[in-house]
Amino acid sequence: MCQHRRMSNAPVLPLIQPEAAACCPPLNERPLTSEEAERTARMFKALGDPVRLRLFSAVASHEGGEACVCDISDVGVSQPTVSHHLKKLKEAGLLSSERRGTWVYYRVEPAVLAAMGALLTKAAAA
Amino acid sequence: MCQHRRMSNAPVLPLIQPEAAACCPPLNERPLTSEEAERTARMFKALGDPVRLRLFSAVASHEGGEACVCDISDVGVSQPTVSHHLKKLKEAGLLSSERRGTWVYYRVEPAVLAAMGALLTKAAAA
Repeated sequence: MCQHRRMSNAPVLPLIQPEAAACCPPLNERPLTSEEAERTARMFKALGDPVRLRLFSAVASHEGGEACVCDISDVGVSQPTVSHHLKKLKEAGLLSSERRGTWVYYRVEPAVLAAMGALLTKAAAA
Repeated sequence: MCQHRRMSNAPVLPLIQPEAAACCPPLNERPLTSEEAERTARMFKALGDPVRLRLFSAVASHEGGEACVCDISDVGVSQPTVSHHLKKLKEAGLLSSERRGTWVYYRVEPAVLAAMGALLTKAAAA
């Protein structure tokens, strides 16, 4: 049973839209511009923290591809820390969230992951 | 013409082997273990800096898929900064390097990129 308190109604930071991840060519096509690099690095950076990466995989692998904070509290950090990291992942455009009743559910953004993956795999294949 | 001075003969830090990148399941298969997350986050973090990402794409897109520091000095940072970032990318296992005569040439590690990409694209597809 979830013991996590309801999130405040504070305004949510603007999200990077999924299309943003598709902005950029494979990394070996040409040098990224400064703007492209800023945008893309932000997403890689969000996955560049071990705790955040574990939480991300916990959400992504949870039943139905979504989870609330209370579902994924077994990575050895406090629930406020879990919330903090999920918010960071959301701000980077890697998770979306929806409030249903008391709880906020997080879900992976497949389009963003696919675009980030393509940056790497197309670069690897060429 | 390269104006960059020759690198010292100081011992090189141990590299993450390319196989290491293939350690981990797609991010939506199951929650990563602490060790898997440490290893994988390190590579994402290396691409999580805009300047480093631009330099990485500069190396990856350079003729022959390799470049020396002097080839990629047009991203608006000093040559020592370029060297610093290339070393970080190498330590994360994303670039390999080889000295040929006076210059050190950097090259992308396609196996590592492919493995990182697969973590994301397989997660996106499921």
